[in-house]
Amino acid sequence: MRLSKMLFVTLREDPAEAEIPSHKLLVRAGYIRRIGSGIYAYLPLMWRVLQKVSQIVREEMNATGAEECLLPQVQPAELWQESGRWDTYTKAEGIMFALRDRRNRDLALGPTHEEVITTIAKEMIRSYQQLPLHLYQIQTKFRDEIRPRFGLMRGREFIMKDGYSFHTDEDSLKETYKDMDKAYRNILRRSGLAFRAVEADSGAIGGSGSQEFMVLAEAGEDEVLYTEDGKYAANVEKAVSLPADAEPSTFKAYEKRETPNTATIETVCKFLKCSPTQLVKNVLYQAVYDTGMTVLVLVNIRGDQDVNEVKLQNELTKLAGEYQAKALISLTVPDEEAQQKWAAKPLPLGYIAPDLSDEYITGSKSVNSKFLRMVDRTAVDLENFVTGANESGYHVVGANWKKEFDLPKIVVDVRTAKVGDRAVHDANQVLETARGIEVGHIFQLGTKYSQIMGATCTNEKGEEIPLVMGCYGVGVSRLAQSAVEQSYDKDGIIWPVAIAPYHAIVTIPNINDTQQLETAENLYTQLNQVGIETLLDDRNERAGVKFKDADLIGIPYRIVTGRSLKSGKVEIVERATHNSQEVALEDVVSYLQKSIAAAVDSKQ
Amino acid sequence: MRLSKMLFVTLREDPAEAEIPSHKLLVRAGYIRRIGSGIYAYLPLMWRVLQKVSQIVREEMNATGAEECLLPQVQPAELWQESGRWDTYTKAEGIMFALRDRRNRDLALGPTHEEVITTIAKEMIRSYQQLPLHLYQIQTKFRDEIRPRFGLMRGREFIMKDGYSFHTDEDSLKETYKDMDKAYRNILRRSGLAFRAVEADSGAIGGSGSQEFMVLAEAGEDEVLYTEDGKYAANVEKAVSLPADAEPSTFKAYEKRETPNTATIETVCKFLKCSPTQLVKNVLYQAVYDTGMTVLVLVNIRGDQDVNEVKLQNELTKLAGEYQAKALISLTVPDEEAQQKWAAKPLPLGYIAPDLSDEYITGSKSVNSKFLRMVDRTAVDLENFVTGANESGYHVVGANWKKEFDLPKIVVDVRTAKVGDRAVHDANQVLETARGIEVGHIFQLGTKYSQIMGATCTNEKGEEIPLVMGCYGVGVSRLAQSAVEQSYDKDGIIWPVAIAPYHAIVTIPNINDTQQLETAENLYTQLNQVGIETLLDDRNERAGVKFKDADLIGIPYRIVTGRSLKSGKVEIVERATHNSQEVALEDVVSYLQKSIAAAVDSKQ
Repeated sequence: MRLSKMLFVTLREDPAEAEIPSHKLLVRAGYIRRIGSGIYAYLPLMWRVLQKVSQIVREEMNATGAEECLLPQVQPAELWQESGRWDTYTKAEGIMFALRDRRNRDLALGPTHEEVITTIAKEMIRSYQQLPLHLYQIQTKFRDEIRPRFGLMRGREFIMKDGYSFHTDEDSLKETYKDMDKAYRNILRRSGLAFRAVEADSGAIGGSGSQEFMVLAEAGEDEVLYTEDGKYAANVEKAVSLPADAEPSTFKAYEKRETPNTATIETVCKFLKCSPTQLVKNVLYQAVYDTGMTVLVLVNIRGDQDVNEVKLQNELTKLAGEYQAKALISLTVPDEEAQQKWAAKPLPLGYIAPDLSDEYITGSKSVNSKFLRMVDRTAVDLENFVTGANESGYHVVGANWKKEFDLPKIVVDVRTAKVGDRAVHDANQVLETARGIEVGHIFQLGTKYSQIMGATCTNEKGEEIPLVMGCYGVGVSRLAQSAVEQSYDKDGIIWPVAIAPYHAIVTIPNINDTQQLETAENLYTQLNQVGIETLLDDRNERAGVKFKDADLIGIPYRIVTGRSLKSGKVEIVERATHNSQEVALEDVVSYLQKSIAAAVDSKQ
Repeated sequence: MRLSKMLFVTLREDPAEAEIPSHKLLVRAGYIRRIGSGIYAYLPLMWRVLQKVSQIVREEMNATGAEECLLPQVQPAELWQESGRWDTYTKAEGIMFALRDRRNRDLALGPTHEEVITTIAKEMIRSYQQLPLHLYQIQTKFRDEIRPRFGLMRGREFIMKDGYSFHTDEDSLKETYKDMDKAYRNILRRSGLAFRAVEADSGAIGGSGSQEFMVLAEAGEDEVLYTEDGKYAANVEKAVSLPADAEPSTFKAYEKRETPNTATIETVCKFLKCSPTQLVKNVLYQAVYDTGMTVLVLVNIRGDQDVNEVKLQNELTKLAGEYQAKALISLTVPDEEAQQKWAAKPLPLGYIAPDLSDEYITGSKSVNSKFLRMVDRTAVDLENFVTGANESGYHVVGANWKKEFDLPKIVVDVRTAKVGDRAVHDANQVLETARGIEVGHIFQLGTKYSQIMGATCTNEKGEEIPLVMGCYGVGVSRLAQSAVEQSYDKDGIIWPVAIAPYHAIVTIPNINDTQQLETAENLYTQLNQVGIETLLDDRNERAGVKFKDADLIGIPYRIVTGRSLKSGKVEIVERATHNSQEVALEDVVSYLQKSIAAAVDSKQ
């Protein structure tokens, strides 16, 4: 393609909307254009990158025997009501766009396709002989994000590959899950990305086990904890570790103490000259279920630990059945207004005890409200601990479970693992931290959807069994932007060769020089003919502008038909290193073929 | 792909939802699956067909220098409000899905992309030097159809290629329009379809000229009128013709006659022993504009002619400005309830005169209502005509314009051209009729969108001029189904080779016969290796079932490893003709390569 014939517009200024380098660069270099909040047009250069990523994904998926299809983006609400996810996905913090058609029927814009594919499987799969089966699609998906940002990273419209596999049993699922792990590693490696596969929380998708694929980058929204020995890596939402040992208590007798202005762990420890590990911290949450049931949750946890809200969500979701609910709709720290609903008198925030007396939980006495206590494992074994006295400005010391406070019946692990913690698999290993961009996520769903939606098949014995399912997603547009986030410099984007929109750009410093023009035209034709995808910068612009633009858009090889033409040579500049080489005209094709082959890892 | 590993399910029974053959066959053969009203999943076989059609489209578009991109599906309402199409597309009979996000901002699900692309052009195009420019995308689009039906033909979600070109002037636009005409003919020819390019109405898209591409098929929703000499073809919505000559009137004097029970043209002509060409027929419509203005329209037309509502809509749209409106929202025949609003006493339906006296149009006296008269050209020159008397059971005869009735000021062509009419370009040519499926539509938009949305560039003289635009759409999923509608038999689908999901299927009559199995496996591998896309029917089923399935899914060549194996041969059956040929094993590849090459027209 000739730049003179393309929609080629680069910007000098960073766009106001952009916060992270990759977003700024993609807008400045003319790859994407904002149309609305979290909604972008993929301009021609970007479209080529997306096509290349898609092609790698397709090849890797097809190699595992998965079949490509395309499922509807508009989905009838009934399917989501059947699976019990309509409320979770549309109400409160739900991220699904809902709409109504002309007959007032509810529809959803698909953020994911478990419901649709399970319906198809239910109708079409009858027998174990049809299994295993794996269908996937590459498609635009929609999420009504609370805060769309970072360009394609957290958009309201984005491209994903999502695949769904069906099995007769867990063993067969695990085999495909393993194949997908390998395929996803191949996809990221072939796309030229540095990444880490980590244990993950399954979130609203559900199921028994899941793994995320994180592209490593400073601007990543996710924190990954890992050990140097390579044996453990997990999203911080899911990560486990050994907490530090608690220091022995210095308080021997139970006593209430006046502790003015000590509403934080730090201040109370300083005041009482004790370690945070000797404290029981008591944290309040408000959980709302789809039935309307509202639960005030008090979590007791050791003073040096923090509650991991994702883990807490999972624990509360497990309890949904107790409240005749299907799903947890929201989990929040109760604000002032909510507190007033719960308590007859103001809560002694910062001084809350491991239990709340009735006067603070009057609101939980109604039919639709409950008060619930939980204790994190870190707090269970503490003795003679310090904790709040349920009175502002007062703590108690030397307290013990079963004496001064009942130990909650529900014991859970809801603590946040932190950098520096010891690893569970080997206490000599310490957790390290890295930032990552989640670009892939694979799930062992098990029978979560098939059971509730009645998708079964007959096994070899003729018995009706629910289908065992897996699902596997990779963000195509997010992957593309994450490549930029991982690879740029002050001059612009540095695309990995495998997913660059073009391999090379022929830059004519002076288009009024006939020899330069002719040589460039010949090279342009020649390179494209042998499959080296090449741009021609034939614009009537100064050489400096052209070089700057070529650097900004990040094409891996720039061929300059400049001064060295007199000696039958052109200059070839590698974008990543800015290394420049004079190459004889007749060697340009083979030079580039070799360079590209060396840079692209096409091994499946 | 092996059938034993695919999601391969065929049905014996026609699906209840399907009305036309192609819809029935695509469901029965497992190509598509209904998920909701007008919403289908494209299963793996269908996806391959769609990919092949898309690839042909892509090649033809790229050959013209157009660039592929991808625009958002969710579009901010502001863009549509800016172009003035929000109301037309969302209210009354509007076909656009609208939704609201979590911040209560209005959004649309794109049925087309003029607004989005014009916004991009406005921001990125500054100078004539960047023009001409042509961007296209292949994407799922959405329409909230009043009556979704015929499978992919009139779905609520469908795949389209839409392209938009930008120019400094009409000449440049016309050049691209001509290129697109050629590209679209290539796309249809290469897809193996019989089609006709016809003059078309531009509808809600607007602009000065447009042409449709009709795949010819009995079940087509559109009627095409054309002449044998090939010089004229048009959609009936747009078609023009010479009306038959009117017979001279037999009534010399004006007179009111009692004509009981003659509310139709047929009955009054019989009663008065006259020709319909001697009558003036008066037809009432109710038009509603986006401002809320409601207009009662009385159209006078010759008795043997019918009003073409699309033409009438266009005439009424031209008048929008008179009512301070931007768009016509609906055009309907007023029902009883509406009539009561208009008239102080019941309208004498079937006996209405060329004008309505005040008592019938009391409702038009309000600020938001008007009464409007129009006369079709066919009625202008009539003399001594017969027409209604504005009194039930009475007509007048021997009436004349300017004497008994004022001739309306607005003279229009709103008659429906009909099969058998004489052609305008040559009165010796007679209009013939055919049914067609509209799969493509190209438009000369001119400055309709650029002007209203302020998309301009500077010309060579440095003057600010509005961009001149064209737009070009082809329905990818509709094209695929129309191929089936044009090509099937009692046994199933007969895919054109160029867009068949696979070229060949190797059928093993008996998988327990080792020789059959091994030969089939070898052929399967060998054929796929040379790029002949081949299925292997390795299922443990009776030969008869396999043959039936291969016919149903319509794979062009079936290779049977049957009896003739003993003499080193296989049977190759051509799906379209059922012709069977014994071919030596070593010749199978070359035989198929030749057959496929002969069947596929890949010329651009």
